[in-house]
Amino acid sequence: MDNILIYISYDGTGYSGFQIQANAPTVQELIERALQVIYKEPIRIIFAGRTDAGVHARGQAANFRAPFRIAISRLPYALNAVLPSDIVVTAARVVPDSFHARFDAKRKIYSYTIDQAHFPQVTRRLYSLHQADKLNIDRIKIAVGYLEGTHDFKAFQAAGSPVSDTQRTLFRVELAERPKEKIVVLFFEGSGFLYHMVRLFTGTLIRVGKGKLNPGDVKAALEGRKPLAVGPTVPACGLCLEKVVYDL
Amino acid sequence: MDNILIYISYDGTGYSGFQIQANAPTVQELIERALQVIYKEPIRIIFAGRTDAGVHARGQAANFRAPFRIAISRLPYALNAVLPSDIVVTAARVVPDSFHARFDAKRKIYSYTIDQAHFPQVTRRLYSLHQADKLNIDRIKIAVGYLEGTHDFKAFQAAGSPVSDTQRTLFRVELAERPKEKIVVLFFEGSGFLYHMVRLFTGTLIRVGKGKLNPGDVKAALEGRKPLAVGPTVPACGLCLEKVVYDL
Repeated sequence: MDNILIYISYDGTGYSGFQIQANAPTVQELIERALQVIYKEPIRIIFAGRTDAGVHARGQAANFRAPFRIAISRLPYALNAVLPSDIVVTAARVVPDSFHARFDAKRKIYSYTIDQAHFPQVTRRLYSLHQADKLNIDRIKIAVGYLEGTHDFKAFQAAGSPVSDTQRTLFRVELAERPKEKIVVLFFEGSGFLYHMVRLFTGTLIRVGKGKLNPGDVKAALEGRKPLAVGPTVPACGLCLEKVVYDL
Repeated sequence: MDNILIYISYDGTGYSGFQIQANAPTVQELIERALQVIYKEPIRIIFAGRTDAGVHARGQAANFRAPFRIAISRLPYALNAVLPSDIVVTAARVVPDSFHARFDAKRKIYSYTIDQAHFPQVTRRLYSLHQADKLNIDRIKIAVGYLEGTHDFKAFQAAGSPVSDTQRTLFRVELAERPKEKIVVLFFEGSGFLYHMVRLFTGTLIRVGKGKLNPGDVKAALEGRKPLAVGPTVPACGLCLEKVVYDL
């Protein structure tokens, strides 16, 4: 049975997150249902990582065993014909038998979009956090310098998280200012992310950009010396899983 | 009573157009209801122009007589506090008593957004037409050259429209290519627009861009020699009323 990797984009607005659960609409459920329509039997997918309710994705990844062969270039079209318009499969490829979408993920890139218009931009309201106060990008960049690298990110996870190993590598944080569109997008590329980590990073960096925290406070938070400098957890709608990177 | 001009942006997805009608949700109804909450009496607005069901706006304009004074800079905030999140008032100003949002509109700018990604971009699906075939922009620009100017645009209106004077001036058509975002946006700036005119322009220009029409066919259509070169009427969701221009 071929092992197939698919890339999935979705508008998370109408879903209780990616991972399947009873009595709530999830992306996984709809993907598996679409696969069942095509392959005529139940199929379980392995996916790169959960996304919370309301979080979007442009590059979620998942793999599954195909009971029989369908021309791989046609598979996205076949799935999209069955899926609702807020879930779109953007690519499919046959991968080695040992490939595992979660264990083999080398890096992930998340984005967080901030709407800097004076009043919320209606066509961006489902995909950004509105923040009219102009952010000081230079201050944010200094704080970002402290976050990048390999650290114990214990301070930047949701309270009560059960993970014991909280060391991660944040390879890169990029700030894209798009003044014409009045948005600022933060990109976070890391080896892995703790629960709510990106949303806590963003909430913290917004406070730095508004002058309510000093860049040095971020360093202190990372070192466990200033827990109140972390957060708040910004809303899910601004967050998007942009890409999962594999060695393939 | 002060005559007040407000600018309104809205996501048209959930509305049966701007203009009030019985038994269907409209933007006008919600604006007037919000004004009534604030002014404690029924208020009728005069607006620059109707938009169809599903059409968006970043710069619709309307005026009304205010029964009493509220600090004008606070008015957008007061209205937005009452309005749903898909309708946002972005500005308010006191205008001369004679000002009329429809009669005094000098120019309007509409945009039409085309998603050129291979598969539809989920976070753009409510605000664009997906068109995977790469459009030849140079061809479109030649056709645009024929459309710009003062013409009888009779050929570019919905069948059965009752308007007798079909001469309009199209001051400018701008094509904005945004390769990073994989979108092309067409901007149409005109003295006024016939019913479905922008959507017929766009449908025609897409056919030109795909090589299914020649730029010269557009000239022939304008001169009434090639009616089949017009259209199709592209979907409402890609259309946005960007701006209404007044001499103020």
